[in-house]
Amino acid sequence: MPKALNQLTAREAAVLIHEKKIRSQDLVKACLARIAERDDVVHAWAGISPALAIEQAHLRDGEAPRGPLHGIPIAIKDVIDTCDQPTEMGSAIYAGHQPRVDAAIVAQLRSAGAVILGKTVTAEFAGMAPTMTVNPHNPAHTPGGSSSGSAAAVADGMVPIAFGTQTGGSVLRPASYCGVFGYKPTYGRINRAGLKFAADSIDTLGWMARSLDDIALVDGVLSGNSTAPLAPSLPLRIGLCRTFLWDKALPETREAIAQADAELQQAGFIVEAVELPADFAAITRFRQHINDYERVHGLAHEWAHHRAQISPELSESLRRGDALAESDYIAALRFSDQARVRLDQWMQPYDVLITPCVNGEAPEGLAYAGDPSFQALWTLLHVPVVGLPTHRGPKGLPVSIQIVGRRYGDARLLQNALAIWNTLKAST
Amino acid sequence: MPKALNQLTAREAAVLIHEKKIRSQDLVKACLARIAERDDVVHAWAGISPALAIEQAHLRDGEAPRGPLHGIPIAIKDVIDTCDQPTEMGSAIYAGHQPRVDAAIVAQLRSAGAVILGKTVTAEFAGMAPTMTVNPHNPAHTPGGSSSGSAAAVADGMVPIAFGTQTGGSVLRPASYCGVFGYKPTYGRINRAGLKFAADSIDTLGWMARSLDDIALVDGVLSGNSTAPLAPSLPLRIGLCRTFLWDKALPETREAIAQADAELQQAGFIVEAVELPADFAAITRFRQHINDYERVHGLAHEWAHHRAQISPELSESLRRGDALAESDYIAALRFSDQARVRLDQWMQPYDVLITPCVNGEAPEGLAYAGDPSFQALWTLLHVPVVGLPTHRGPKGLPVSIQIVGRRYGDARLLQNALAIWNTLKAST
Repeated sequence: MPKALNQLTAREAAVLIHEKKIRSQDLVKACLARIAERDDVVHAWAGISPALAIEQAHLRDGEAPRGPLHGIPIAIKDVIDTCDQPTEMGSAIYAGHQPRVDAAIVAQLRSAGAVILGKTVTAEFAGMAPTMTVNPHNPAHTPGGSSSGSAAAVADGMVPIAFGTQTGGSVLRPASYCGVFGYKPTYGRINRAGLKFAADSIDTLGWMARSLDDIALVDGVLSGNSTAPLAPSLPLRIGLCRTFLWDKALPETREAIAQADAELQQAGFIVEAVELPADFAAITRFRQHINDYERVHGLAHEWAHHRAQISPELSESLRRGDALAESDYIAALRFSDQARVRLDQWMQPYDVLITPCVNGEAPEGLAYAGDPSFQALWTLLHVPVVGLPTHRGPKGLPVSIQIVGRRYGDARLLQNALAIWNTLKAST
Repeated sequence: MPKALNQLTAREAAVLIHEKKIRSQDLVKACLARIAERDDVVHAWAGISPALAIEQAHLRDGEAPRGPLHGIPIAIKDVIDTCDQPTEMGSAIYAGHQPRVDAAIVAQLRSAGAVILGKTVTAEFAGMAPTMTVNPHNPAHTPGGSSSGSAAAVADGMVPIAFGTQTGGSVLRPASYCGVFGYKPTYGRINRAGLKFAADSIDTLGWMARSLDDIALVDGVLSGNSTAPLAPSLPLRIGLCRTFLWDKALPETREAIAQADAELQQAGFIVEAVELPADFAAITRFRQHINDYERVHGLAHEWAHHRAQISPELSESLRRGDALAESDYIAALRFSDQARVRLDQWMQPYDVLITPCVNGEAPEGLAYAGDPSFQALWTLLHVPVVGLPTHRGPKGLPVSIQIVGRRYGDARLLQNALAIWNTLKAST
């Protein structure tokens, strides 16, 4: 039985559209139907206009192909500006806010033919406040945050690709909890114009999909990189990096790492246990300082004029930021600048690192979106990461492993992650 | 004869307001009167509402002091968002554009008591297109750009402090051409939320004033740094860095550097000629790559939908960015990341560098806003710089020297620049 249209990957759908076997309208309508059927439970969407989505698809169907995403519906986290739909930041302060222009990535996606399907639920200003979104695998569990809606929408077959942002673990963690592929490129590589900043010096755009090929497809569009994909240099040299956070890893994460280790070695990959420089353990604290300090400065207007509309969770972070001396912030920036260059050197012997993505399965309840530590470490270090949903935990919920590449080595990372994914999939 | 109110420095005015010898309203009205008298010639202002300015001053006069800038008028370059005045980016595409919230720095300035006097003329999207603003010292000459209006307004006694942005040389060059103090802090140290990006990875907020003390006053407000100012560690160890661009230096710039060298040595400072690492000569080209690539991506929406309203100058930069391969962009980012960390080491023996600020005096005419090379070098390197208007050229126009500090050593740089300024002033 062929897949339902809403379950197609972007690549599969793009081929069918290109061959005129389906129309963008059919695909978009199938996604809208799935949303109509399920979003009363999932609550993945912050704003969606079926008429506008269908109108875009209709236009794409009537014109020559614009690019590799022609006719493909894509969802955008609601902290990223769209010129034709409100962008509300998960905050009542921005109710009805209509940006004048598209964010850079949104404009680039449209130029490649994408249909912007709608805006997905974000935690307030991409922070830690809870949202209404549930985990499609089990609605009693959090989907993770802050890109909650994007992860849930992709996992639930509502859209093939969704964009998020990561300041701590806001792409990789929800992608793991919801069992989809997650990707955070190298910091700064993907243009951030039109993004509401959480913390400028670490905020990174990322995206999620139900296939690794779709992750790479979008990367090619945004980077303008039309060169042939790099082949992985097999056998890969893999650093198995449990990190200083290993004590937090629950049994399912330990199993996911052990299983990847065993299967990759069996398949002939070189896997070597490695430890980060000891002083990198300070990164968790330094990232928190940067996060809090940059948030309270970046939200200076909202904090001064709309304090009553800011959640207790975010207020706590902003108060911490207010209380932090600039010298502590500068110390964190200095350490980070140097750690990034040190990591460039330190990673030379390895093609990639394999490292835990999350503590474990998605926690129960919606009040807490989960621990960002395992993801946040790499966010601060600016390196590209891919999350592979390789495992299941004791409750049957997804658990990813994280593949870390070298800074600016994004194209190579995507190829290496594919080689790893194919190997692990073949073993199961 | 006491100074006219519009000629007071911010510190002088703040003391008088604090002592209730003048009211903010009087000061603001004096600035508005100067603008009314002169702006038909100078064209420094993109948007100003006298009623709104007076209303803010009236409110400040009626309340307890908010902070160190209580009642002080400040101008904001028109690529920085203000919630109560349009922000038009120097582009017809943004005609009448009204942001929802203040940029972070604007909110911080208001919280410290500042009156936002109005928006100053910017080159289109802080680029190289000409503006109508003239040099107040001689209207036949450019004031420099892209923060043209800010520099001209401060120089002409219309406002004591004005904010700009620097992606190449857009604060330091107009400050030099107009004979005011210019300051570009360490990249990332001053929050950029609410700034329309030109090139995210190098865009830096800065400001201008008619006294170095005013520069430091604002730095204290934005950094929340209320600790006692650092004393310079005399005698300063100064690296005299002519740079690989020295061949571009016109006689007036050569004289400015030679004079500073001689006078500082005579005053007992240790001045040693230094050369940057030879491969830093590539910075001019790499910065151009970053500038062009990030501009065309950051303006993806405007470039796709409003191309006819983009100037020939900016279009040329955007076309270069479009044509650049991502690999060339990445090469520029990699080099820059490493050069910054290398510079941290290389600068260890010196408290500051003294280096040319500009080729020479402001060029004649408004079509060309001058060569940004001498400023852009340090913008790419993310280090803090202060421009001191020490000299005059053959046409009687101002020429600055540039004092460069260590990355994140902004507070120390401001103190050291003051020691240098006081010494050079005493010699003349």
